[in-house]
Amino acid sequence: MKSPVKLYKKDFEYSYTSGASVTIELLKTRPDLVESVFVHSDFNKPDIIANLCAQSETDCMFNDAVFRKINQKENSYVLGVFKKFPSKITANAPHVVLVNPGDMGNLGTIIRTLVGFNIRDLAIITPAADIWNPKTIRASMGSFFQINFKHYESFSDYCSAFPEHRIYTFMLDGEIELSPDYVPKQQIFSLVFGNEATGLSENFRSVGTSVKIPQSMAVDSLNLSTAVAVGVYLFTS
Amino acid sequence: MKSPVKLYKKDFEYSYTSGASVTIELLKTRPDLVESVFVHSDFNKPDIIANLCAQSETDCMFNDAVFRKINQKENSYVLGVFKKFPSKITANAPHVVLVNPGDMGNLGTIIRTLVGFNIRDLAIITPAADIWNPKTIRASMGSFFQINFKHYESFSDYCSAFPEHRIYTFMLDGEIELSPDYVPKQQIFSLVFGNEATGLSENFRSVGTSVKIPQSMAVDSLNLSTAVAVGVYLFTS
Repeated sequence: MKSPVKLYKKDFEYSYTSGASVTIELLKTRPDLVESVFVHSDFNKPDIIANLCAQSETDCMFNDAVFRKINQKENSYVLGVFKKFPSKITANAPHVVLVNPGDMGNLGTIIRTLVGFNIRDLAIITPAADIWNPKTIRASMGSFFQINFKHYESFSDYCSAFPEHRIYTFMLDGEIELSPDYVPKQQIFSLVFGNEATGLSENFRSVGTSVKIPQSMAVDSLNLSTAVAVGVYLFTS
Repeated sequence: MKSPVKLYKKDFEYSYTSGASVTIELLKTRPDLVESVFVHSDFNKPDIIANLCAQSETDCMFNDAVFRKINQKENSYVLGVFKKFPSKITANAPHVVLVNPGDMGNLGTIIRTLVGFNIRDLAIITPAADIWNPKTIRASMGSFFQINFKHYESFSDYCSAFPEHRIYTFMLDGEIELSPDYVPKQQIFSLVFGNEATGLSENFRSVGTSVKIPQSMAVDSLNLSTAVAVGVYLFTS
């Protein structure tokens, strides 16, 4: 039997949640988005999924063929198919800006952290890891469906769109050292983080205020998701 | 040609660093541990590795066969083989205790975070993700070689070994809410975190002081590495 769902590719018009908990998140938070849900016959709690689908009048299909290709790479027994949707970020809310994030796992983890600390607006400067990829969505544990996001081709495009936002760039040698006692808080701010391997280039130094999280000389840098976690926590606490 | 290095398995007496940057970390921080280094002929900066090997009188071998099996799973051009070594944690230093961590990527990221915030002692309650696995070591970006660690079969075994440590258990409904303004600081403390999926069980509530990181109702919990990042940052800042 041929699978009705193909292994995800970036240019598809749809994507899917892979795994029970992330599909449950999708069905609970954005039932309007779901096109169909597939459940493997080995899945041990089909009723939870079937009931959520019934509530939102979504097709719930038992179909093992769907999982044959997908489970070459992971171990999933529930799949929620949704069409990619337009999203835009809020003008009068704080933002996180990721410049060229390269890793889908990191991107998903960061999205979960943002929602955990009540930041709902994410700007991404391209090129960047695919936010729609099932791997990103899975790493976000479904928080993906609770954020607004928008891609920009350059950081200056982003800045032009939000001239009121106070910009804070996270750099290893930032001019202001953040601490629990000192965070330069503003109402409307943008916290800007660079790529995992390269950080933010020197060009960012003159944009807004550069800040740093004090860290041991024993590491080259903190992991991107660690830097975002501490930075966002400090600015939102 | 047969590979002189086998794909890593948990019961091996040796492990290896996979990738240039983590192998460079190994050669720089613990040259005494290295048995041999392999470099793929496609690697574009062999001199850096060869020079570090020469400094520590380590064999540096160009051998593509080694990478054939290993690169079915990842993309690596440098491999540093080392024998597993005994390690123990320091009595008069702060500790992080991970109870049954399940994910090697998380474990490695956490190790990098600990070193970044100057915590060098990690206790792990088993069963747990394999700290020696090349995947853990790679996620740590080589910080693995800068920590002391020890495995315990139970949390009470750990507590018996360090009766002077003040215990803080991170729980979603911990009794003390941490904030930048309030962290119950002690000289010698243990920060205890549960498994990714299950957190700490109710049994931990009566041990030491339970603490929580305030977080949005929109997420079930923070990612483990995010919780550790914020918790360790607050206790060490």
